[in-house]
Amino acid sequence: MMGRFNSLFLAVEGLFMIPAFFVSFCYGEKESAKAFLISIGIIMAISGILALVTKNAKKGFFAKEGLICVGTSWIIMSVFGCLPFVISGAIPNYIDALFEMVSGFSTTGASIITDLDPIPNGIIYWRSFSHWLGGMGVLVFLLAIIPVSGQSEGYTMHLLRAESPGPDVGKLVPRMRQTAVVLYLSYIVLSVVNLVFLLLGDMPLFDAVCTMFGTAGTGGFGIKNDSIAGYSPYLQNVTTVFMFLFGINFSCYYLLIIKQFKNVLRDEELRVYFGVVLASIVAISINIFGSVGNLADTVRYSAFQVVSIITTTGYATVNFELWPSFSKSILLILMVFGACAGSTAGGLKLARVILLVKNFLRNISQVLRPQKVKVIKVNGKAVDEKVFVNTNAYFFVYVVIIGVSTLLISLDGFSMMTNFSASVSCFNNVGPGFEAVGATCNYSQFSCLSKIVLIFDMLAGRLEIFPILVLFSPKAWKR
Amino acid sequence: MMGRFNSLFLAVEGLFMIPAFFVSFCYGEKESAKAFLISIGIIMAISGILALVTKNAKKGFFAKEGLICVGTSWIIMSVFGCLPFVISGAIPNYIDALFEMVSGFSTTGASIITDLDPIPNGIIYWRSFSHWLGGMGVLVFLLAIIPVSGQSEGYTMHLLRAESPGPDVGKLVPRMRQTAVVLYLSYIVLSVVNLVFLLLGDMPLFDAVCTMFGTAGTGGFGIKNDSIAGYSPYLQNVTTVFMFLFGINFSCYYLLIIKQFKNVLRDEELRVYFGVVLASIVAISINIFGSVGNLADTVRYSAFQVVSIITTTGYATVNFELWPSFSKSILLILMVFGACAGSTAGGLKLARVILLVKNFLRNISQVLRPQKVKVIKVNGKAVDEKVFVNTNAYFFVYVVIIGVSTLLISLDGFSMMTNFSASVSCFNNVGPGFEAVGATCNYSQFSCLSKIVLIFDMLAGRLEIFPILVLFSPKAWKR
Repeated sequence: MMGRFNSLFLAVEGLFMIPAFFVSFCYGEKESAKAFLISIGIIMAISGILALVTKNAKKGFFAKEGLICVGTSWIIMSVFGCLPFVISGAIPNYIDALFEMVSGFSTTGASIITDLDPIPNGIIYWRSFSHWLGGMGVLVFLLAIIPVSGQSEGYTMHLLRAESPGPDVGKLVPRMRQTAVVLYLSYIVLSVVNLVFLLLGDMPLFDAVCTMFGTAGTGGFGIKNDSIAGYSPYLQNVTTVFMFLFGINFSCYYLLIIKQFKNVLRDEELRVYFGVVLASIVAISINIFGSVGNLADTVRYSAFQVVSIITTTGYATVNFELWPSFSKSILLILMVFGACAGSTAGGLKLARVILLVKNFLRNISQVLRPQKVKVIKVNGKAVDEKVFVNTNAYFFVYVVIIGVSTLLISLDGFSMMTNFSASVSCFNNVGPGFEAVGATCNYSQFSCLSKIVLIFDMLAGRLEIFPILVLFSPKAWKR
Repeated sequence: MMGRFNSLFLAVEGLFMIPAFFVSFCYGEKESAKAFLISIGIIMAISGILALVTKNAKKGFFAKEGLICVGTSWIIMSVFGCLPFVISGAIPNYIDALFEMVSGFSTTGASIITDLDPIPNGIIYWRSFSHWLGGMGVLVFLLAIIPVSGQSEGYTMHLLRAESPGPDVGKLVPRMRQTAVVLYLSYIVLSVVNLVFLLLGDMPLFDAVCTMFGTAGTGGFGIKNDSIAGYSPYLQNVTTVFMFLFGINFSCYYLLIIKQFKNVLRDEELRVYFGVVLASIVAISINIFGSVGNLADTVRYSAFQVVSIITTTGYATVNFELWPSFSKSILLILMVFGACAGSTAGGLKLARVILLVKNFLRNISQVLRPQKVKVIKVNGKAVDEKVFVNTNAYFFVYVVIIGVSTLLISLDGFSMMTNFSASVSCFNNVGPGFEAVGATCNYSQFSCLSKIVLIFDMLAGRLEIFPILVLFSPKAWKR
C-alpha cells in the first residue's frame, strides 16, 4: 500500500520537473537540462517499478498508516528531488543537495549555496518551485485530482490531517476531495494575482515567477545573493502584502467566497495575527528608527522583516543581524509563533498559541476557584479536551526537539546563539537565524551531522512532528 | 489574616538577623553592626504593628488565600531583608540591594556586587544565610515550630503546597506539622555534616559556614571573587557531593530513616537524577579533556560544574564560559531541568520532566492506537490526569515567562545569549549564565527595569510561578 502511494508521489514529482527542464532548455543550459532529463527518467522508472510491484495492495488504512505514508513520501520525494542538483554539478555534495531540497519542500528557505550567480536558471527555478509545491503539499494536490470513492473518504481524511498544518483540521465542504480542490484553487488564484502585481512593478518574468513561488509557499529561497533587497520599494511592499496573505488560514478565503464575511471578521486567530503583526511592526519601528532616520524606510524595513519572519518565509530586505537585540528578540519570538494554521506558514501556529494561552488561563482560574468547571471556547465553539492534551504534548516535544537539535549542532563549535537560532529557524521552516546563520549568511559551514539534524528538523517542522517521529517508533512498524 | 501571617514572617526574619549582627560585632564592623540593629528594630516594629492591627482576624483559608499569603510574604521578607545592605552602605542603591536579597532568598546566587573584598563579613554572612533560609522556606520553618490545631490541618496543607517545590506535594507523615519537622531536621543534620566535612579540610570557620549555607540552600553566593576555585580540590569535591545530596528529594531521606531502602532505590526521579548527572559529567569530560589534559582535573571540573548547575546552586571552580559550546549547551539544558522535586533546588524539577515525557510518549502511542486507553504510572502508582493538565500548563507558562523576560531584558542591548541565559538562569534560580552574565561576570551592568524583571523571575522561579502570578490576577483580590 505504501509503495503504491509513493509511486504516485514520485510520478507527480517527475511531472512537475518537466517545466524545470524547459526552463533550462530555453536558457540554453545544457548541463542542467540533461540533469533534469536524467532525473525525470530515474524518478519515472522507480515510480513505474513501485506501481507494478504493489499492484494488488489492499486499500484501507487508518491514522497510523496515514502518518507513516506521509512521512515516508516526503522523505522519498526529497531524496529523488535533489538529483538534478547533484547531476548538474550545481551542488556536487549529495547531503548538501538533500539539505537544499528538503529546505525547499519544507518551505524553509535555508540554503547551503554561498553564491547564487553561477547557478543555472533551471536549477533556481526547480529550487523555488519546490517551495510552491511544498507549501500546500503534494498530498493535498493528489487528493484534489484523484477521484475518491465514498468508502475511502475516511482514509483520505487521515492523510490530509497528517500533512496539513494546525491543531485541528476540519473539512470546509462535506467531501474531502472538494476541500482539497477549494484549497488548491485559492492557492493558485492568489499566486497568479501575486505574479501580476510583481509584473506590474516591472520585475523580469523569471524573477517574478520564482519570487512568487517563494512568497506563496512562504519558503524564502532568494534568487539573488541579496534576497529581495535589490528590488524596488514597490516590489518589496507587494511581497510584504502577499506574504501576509499567504499566512492567513485558507479556510478564511473559502468563507469569503461563500460570503460569510462575519465569520471571517470574528475569527480569533485572524485577529491575533493582525494584532501580533501590527504590534511587532510598531515596536521594531520605534526601536530601529534612530539608525534608519526616515519614517517611510523604517516602516517598510520593519513591516517586511516582521511579515517575512512570522509567516516563516525568510526573505530579507535588510541585514537584521545589525538591529538592536530587542528587535532581534521580537523576530525570534515571531519565528516560534508562526502564522495561522491552515496556511502555508510554519511555526507553532497562532491557533496553537491561542489554545495554550486559554488552557493556561483556565488553569490559573481553577487554582483560585477549584470548584468551578470551565469549558474553553474558540470562535464561539467549545473545544474538545482532547485537543488540549494533544496541543500540550505537541508543545512539549516542540521544545524538546529544539533543545536536542541545539545540543547536537553545538558539536560543531559555533556560538550558542548560532546553534539555537539555526534549530529554531529550521524547525519552524523560517530560513535565516542569527549570528553565523544570520540574514546575510547561510548553512554551508555546518558539518554533515548538523546538516542531517537540520534536515530532520525541517521535515518534522513542516509535517508537524508526528509523521516524522512515528517513523522512529518501533510500534509503528508492527502489524 | 494576611497581615497576621506577614507579621509572623517578619518576626522570624528579625530573629534570624540577630546572628548576623553578632558576626558584624565580632569582626568589629561598626557600620554593618549598626545597620543590622536598625534593620532589626524596623522589622520588629512593623511586625508588632501588623500583629496589633490584625489581632482579631479570622483564621480559615483556602488554596487562593494560601497562594496570596505565600507570594506577599516572600516579597515583604525581601523588601525588608535588604535594609542592612542599604543602611551599611555595602549596596547603596535600593534596587540593587533588593536584587541581591531576592537572589539570596530565592537561592539563585546572582549578584550585582562586582568586588567582594570590601564587603563586611556581617553582610556576607546575612547574604549567605538567606540562601539557607530560603532553601527550605520560612513557611515550612513556621509550620514546624507553631502548634497547629486539628482544624487548621487543611489550611497548612495549602500553604505548604504553595511554597514547596514539585508537581505534587505529599505528606510524609499524617500530620503536616510533623512533616515540616522531619524536613527541617533532615536539612539541619545534612547541613551540619556538610560543615564538619568542610572544617576537616581546613577551611576557615567563617568560610565553611557561608559555603555550607550556599550549598545547603543550593544558592551559590560566593564569598570570594573567584567563587570556590581558590579552595583545595578536597573542599571542591566535598562541595560537589553535598550539592548533589541537597538536590535529592528530602522525602528520600525520610524513607532512609524509617528504613524503607527499597522505595528509595525504586524512586524514578532519583534514578533519572543519577543518570542525567552521570551522563552529563561523562559527555562534558570527553568534550573538555583536550583543553585540560589531565583526567583527574577534567572529571573534577566537569563534576563540580554539572552538579552545581543541575542543582541550580551556581558555584563555579572554572570559567565555563571558555568551554566548547557543546558543554555549554549541556549546562543550559541542565539549568532548565533542575534537580529533584522536594529538594532545595530550582528549575523545572526532574519529576515534572518525567511527567512531561511520559505524557508525550502516551500521546504518541495513542496516535498509533487511538482505541487503547493508557494510565501513566510513576513509582508504580497511577498518576491523576489533573496532574498532567497542571504540569502542562506549568510548562507552557514556564516557557512564556522566559520568553517575555528575554524580550524585556533585551532593551538593554546586550547580546541575545546574555539576555536569554540571564532569564533562564534567574528564573531557574541558578545564578550564572553565559556571555555577559557568565561564570566570572555579574548582573551589575543591567538597567533598573531589567533588574526588576529578573527579581520577578527569581521569585516566580522559587515559588513555582503560581503564588507570584496570582498576585497580578484581579480575580485573586476579589472577595
